[in-house]
Amino acid sequence: MIRVGIIGSTGYAGGELVRLLMNHRKAEILWYGSRSYIDKKYSEVYQNMFRIVEDICRDDDLEKLADQVDVIFTATPQGFLAGLLTEEILSKVKIVDLSADYRIKDVSIYEKWYGIEHKSPQFIPEAVYGLCEINRGLIDAKTRLVANPGCYTTCSILTAYPMVREGLIDTDTLIVDAKSGTSGAGRGAKLPNLFCEVNENMKAYGVASHRHTPEIEEQLGYAGDCKVTISFTPHLVPMNRGILVTEYASLRRKGDGTLPSYEEIKAVYDKYYASEKFVRVLEKGVCPETKWVEGSNYVDINFVIDERTGRIIMMGALDNLVKGAAGQAVQNMNLLFGLKESEGLEFVPCFP
Amino acid sequence: MIRVGIIGSTGYAGGELVRLLMNHRKAEILWYGSRSYIDKKYSEVYQNMFRIVEDICRDDDLEKLADQVDVIFTATPQGFLAGLLTEEILSKVKIVDLSADYRIKDVSIYEKWYGIEHKSPQFIPEAVYGLCEINRGLIDAKTRLVANPGCYTTCSILTAYPMVREGLIDTDTLIVDAKSGTSGAGRGAKLPNLFCEVNENMKAYGVASHRHTPEIEEQLGYAGDCKVTISFTPHLVPMNRGILVTEYASLRRKGDGTLPSYEEIKAVYDKYYASEKFVRVLEKGVCPETKWVEGSNYVDINFVIDERTGRIIMMGALDNLVKGAAGQAVQNMNLLFGLKESEGLEFVPCFP
Amino acid sequence: MIRVGIIGSTGYAGGELVRLLMNHRKAEILWYGSRSYIDKKYSEVYQNMFRIVEDICRDDDLEKLADQVDVIFTATPQGFLAGLLTEEILSKVKIVDLSADYRIKDVSIYEKWYGIEHKSPQFIPEAVYGLCEINRGLIDAKTRLVANPGCYTTCSILTAYPMVREGLIDTDTLIVDAKSGTSGAGRGAKLPNLFCEVNENMKAYGVASHRHTPEIEEQLGYAGDCKVTISFTPHLVPMNRGILVTEYASLRRKGDGTLPSYEEIKAVYDKYYASEKFVRVLEKGVCPETKWVEGSNYVDINFVIDERTGRIIMMGALDNLVKGAAGQAVQNMNLLFGLKESEGLEFVPCFP
Amino acid sequence: MIRVGIIGSTGYAGGELVRLLMNHRKAEILWYGSRSYIDKKYSEVYQNMFRIVEDICRDDDLEKLADQVDVIFTATPQGFLAGLLTEEILSKVKIVDLSADYRIKDVSIYEKWYGIEHKSPQFIPEAVYGLCEINRGLIDAKTRLVANPGCYTTCSILTAYPMVREGLIDTDTLIVDAKSGTSGAGRGAKLPNLFCEVNENMKAYGVASHRHTPEIEEQLGYAGDCKVTISFTPHLVPMNRGILVTEYASLRRKGDGTLPSYEEIKAVYDKYYASEKFVRVLEKGVCPETKWVEGSNYVDINFVIDERTGRIIMMGALDNLVKGAAGQAVQNMNLLFGLKESEGLEFVPCFP
Repeated sequence: MIRVGIIGSTGYAGGELVRLLMNHRKAEILWYGSRSYIDKKYSEVYQNMFRIVEDICRDDDLEKLADQVDVIFTATPQGFLAGLLTEEILSKVKIVDLSADYRIKDVSIYEKWYGIEHKSPQFIPEAVYGLCEINRGLIDAKTRLVANPGCYTTCSILTAYPMVREGLIDTDTLIVDAKSGTSGAGRGAKLPNLFCEVNENMKAYGVASHRHTPEIEEQLGYAGDCKVTISFTPHLVPMNRGILVTEYASLRRKGDGTLPSYEEIKAVYDKYYASEKFVRVLEKGVCPETKWVEGSNYVDINFVIDERTGRIIMMGALDNLVKGAAGQAVQNMNLLFGLKESEGLEFVPCFP
Repeated sequence: MIRVGIIGSTGYAGGELVRLLMNHRKAEILWYGSRSYIDKKYSEVYQNMFRIVEDICRDDDLEKLADQVDVIFTATPQGFLAGLLTEEILSKVKIVDLSADYRIKDVSIYEKWYGIEHKSPQFIPEAVYGLCEINRGLIDAKTRLVANPGCYTTCSILTAYPMVREGLIDTDTLIVDAKSGTSGAGRGAKLPNLFCEVNENMKAYGVASHRHTPEIEEQLGYAGDCKVTISFTPHLVPMNRGILVTEYASLRRKGDGTLPSYEEIKAVYDKYYASEKFVRVLEKGVCPETKWVEGSNYVDINFVIDERTGRIIMMGALDNLVKGAAGQAVQNMNLLFGLKESEGLEFVPCFP
Repeated sequence: MIRVGIIGSTGYAGGELVRLLMNHRKAEILWYGSRSYIDKKYSEVYQNMFRIVEDICRDDDLEKLADQVDVIFTATPQGFLAGLLTEEILSKVKIVDLSADYRIKDVSIYEKWYGIEHKSPQFIPEAVYGLCEINRGLIDAKTRLVANPGCYTTCSILTAYPMVREGLIDTDTLIVDAKSGTSGAGRGAKLPNLFCEVNENMKAYGVASHRHTPEIEEQLGYAGDCKVTISFTPHLVPMNRGILVTEYASLRRKGDGTLPSYEEIKAVYDKYYASEKFVRVLEKGVCPETKWVEGSNYVDINFVIDERTGRIIMMGALDNLVKGAAGQAVQNMNLLFGLKESEGLEFVPCFP
Repeated sequence: MIRVGIIGSTGYAGGELVRLLMNHRKAEILWYGSRSYIDKKYSEVYQNMFRIVEDICRDDDLEKLADQVDVIFTATPQGFLAGLLTEEILSKVKIVDLSADYRIKDVSIYEKWYGIEHKSPQFIPEAVYGLCEINRGLIDAKTRLVANPGCYTTCSILTAYPMVREGLIDTDTLIVDAKSGTSGAGRGAKLPNLFCEVNENMKAYGVASHRHTPEIEEQLGYAGDCKVTISFTPHLVPMNRGILVTEYASLRRKGDGTLPSYEEIKAVYDKYYASEKFVRVLEKGVCPETKWVEGSNYVDINFVIDERTGRIIMMGALDNLVKGAAGQAVQNMNLLFGLKESEGLEFVPCFP
């Protein structure tokens, strides 16, 4: 039984981790960390857990926790883990960090986009970017620190990855228009997240400045072995869960000046995803919908070739709290401990 | 492995049955019946099942199906099963009927409220009303026909049951004000169920005439060993899933003229529900919320004593597609085949 | 031109007052009071007012304001106005108070239900309860202080008023099950009002203890000339606007033991409401829906007689921010200044 | 008093026309055309109009109607008006067509994108494309036929118009990612528009093939005096009303190789819109939100310059049923009859 500690267990991502681990046969949560609710029963914070979780919330003492568990999930604000992580902690316990602290290899980019100083850049090199479908070969029993990807990021990268990897699009033209449900904004009591402000409303935010931008650029840069600079625009949508990305890029024409065909591009997607359990490339003409993946670890992807503009429109959908956060974190945990990668994640999406 | 056939697998309740059975380790669906989508891939009707269910939809031939499976779930319109059921079918296969056809023992009441003639009343006596928490003793390997309770009904009955059973309320004063998410209205393409008609809207319907009324009355009548006549008012709420009932009744005063105390009533609820896995009587002062049971088989219940009026206000919440339909059907199946009652139903509620 | 000051102009009710008064031809807002946003542009708080309102928010100095305007609307927390009101202020300006401070004649009841001491009970006697359809005769140029009714209250009272007034129901059996959109919870940044907590959710709250209860009881007591004690249960619904009440009461039987007929009761409703512009008694069999009155000052009402239980089920719907708050306040202002009662309120409901 | 007839008065756009015209002081509706509800009371179809509209629905006899009214609004399916329009009708009555029949000057493009033959192309040349802010100079008492723009189109064009007109962007790079509330899908009883299918869901549709594409291209082509080919992707959002567009284009660099500054671009927007009542260019840094224009005829617009990519991200928001359909139609009517352009449209947006 893998002993698990969660720091930040009362945010939405933390709560989802708890939900998923309750159904995981080989893991057990020993520590429900929550700075805001210390000594309160966890099931009073999340009433769905009434009579399921009997524990109380505890503080966020990483050092103490490192002695008691096999893996720590940190679903904490930016800078939190970077400020506390030590070699001693890492020598005792594995960490799956759901924050951005170790996602970006170039610390100056991290500091610029996040506007904070990184307190432990020495651990960045060893951190593995835990986008399992791409980096699973790097995650095993020897890995100590996994940087769990962001929600927008996971969706944005996986949707374009095969095209970038195979050099089929001009990455300078890549535009990611992303739409997210409101749980992505967290459980903080802020006016813009009130029901009446979000419901029956839609808006863009963080235009040309959202922090997930450099993370997408870095990872797609590795994929394409080139510098990638994109436009990324997130939007807030009146729904609880779900991210939908619509990505635009100019297709590279073939030697004869024609565009690649649907079949050729489909074959490229299949090359990367046909054997992936959690990535579903849909049938021709079917557009991904967030509802069809809700509650599950799936990413649904498809594309349309626009002959008129020479562009490809790529679409991806996932549940931001599952594949975009807690589900992927569990997937990483499974890899770290040599379990079946889908252990505890075999939920069928819930509809409606 | 229990071989399962579903008639009406493409309605919302049918779809939920499929979702639940995908995670059931001892059952396997062999027949996806759907009159509307014969020969269409099931996953084209429910895109969440893409790459999970490969079968195509088939017709609703009960006789043929009876030869091939161990249990048939009928999630069909009223009168459908009553019109087809035969002794021969029942001799071959168990049936869990999610329609109302065999729920009401007095056929004249059925015919009056449903406005149709019952075509096979001879099977009514043997049908067991499958409200598991109350009737589990009647459901076992010898049972052939289970009448799976309605969604409003399950919630309404369980919420008041201990009070009625123990004679603590005056059932003549019982009023059930019920609120339901829109999946209860089914997947038919009808104008009143369009997004723009339901969203940002709320209404009562079927006032003093809803078909679940006599079902609640009959079952509470058995509980209290008396004739029960209630006011039942359903309402449509702009959410996908969830039923909330608020029930009002005058408390019977004790010999000394006082009302029973909170502790006394709590003890009564605990007597019936403390050991029930799927019924959670909440802590004092906590009102049930539909979101806290979403996606799960739980019913959350609580009550408040109103000293000023001498009434008790009882509240119950469940997911209409799970405990209110498919989940309870699976619970019944588990009883029919001697499995652990919660097999395949151990989902933790999904929040948010 | 009536000069208007608003204290509390940045709450939802205050914002709605601004919206309505922008379309009122005989009133002009001179003072946008808001303790939270002093010196901030009003249109930065409510972006819908961009280029429509150029003013900045000001403090809540009642005395200063009294010198500058003809009427003050106070959309403020309980106890605020009671703590500041003086004879001098009232001698200079009319006040329409949207809080509960002067709604309840018996100050001990106010203090018990609101849990605060009333600081100026001397003004309670002269305050007129501004439910215009009932009390318009008491509101004119000589009135100084109007207690604008609560949202639940307006809907609950108007729905039952004719029946109580004519003695057709047993008020001891009256139960009000009320459902409200979330704007009724105000614009405070509180966790329970976050989108993800409210959306796809429904719950009761304040069971047997909600502060609107004594207000309904007092007013219906005047109507029926008797002591009225009710059960009142509010519920939170995932929609922005709208209140729906479902009320239950036992009908008084006629001398011959029969229940009054539909036509008899309809005639009673028509007696009180046929000539009311803002109260619409619907056609037989049509249930009120909140969406059909959204954005307007209408209250839609209907009823069903339940022969089986001898009860009447009465239903009412209104927009909590209009007829339940700001619209009624404007209606009162119109009466105070001798304008046409519907001036500035002739909005047609907005659908969908 | 302008006498008005509406063909298609029971769709959502038709219903909105009725709502707006009820508050228009110089127009009166004489004919509520609705093929689906002939002889039914209009207020039974739209219960919000109870006691406001007493008329019954009538057929769609254009010829008869032409004799009785001054202007006909046709809120009808594609091809309907084109199939019936005659010189005789146009000689008697003005027509504002909310369908696409006369929007596109090149009939072959119309026939290709709409997949139907155009039955009266002879009237296309005289039809004025009624985007008032751009073409108001072409609409006056002599105009007989106005092609009222589409909802996506109005928003997409107005958002980019100043940039295209002034040649500041490379139109070959223009991408329009549009998001719409569900009322845009109409009131037809279709499964994909059911509450449970739309709620908590988001998807793209009509990718690279939506019919509003050529309309946007044609109008922006006139603006820029060049051939414009764009990528246009509509999305369905779980809200009733509102369109948000996010548009991406590469900025043309200045002679010195630098990008235009915020102030330079703001000046361009102001040049076109500073004196427009219904177009609001927001303050720097404020992103348009659909909720802030709901129920009104406003379009809110803003932009962000992305120095990293050299792109401008332009955003626009409107209410698809008002400025995107009925409001603009009324605005056109006002121009046709020499009224103040904003007559009957001075609604303040409704929030929340």
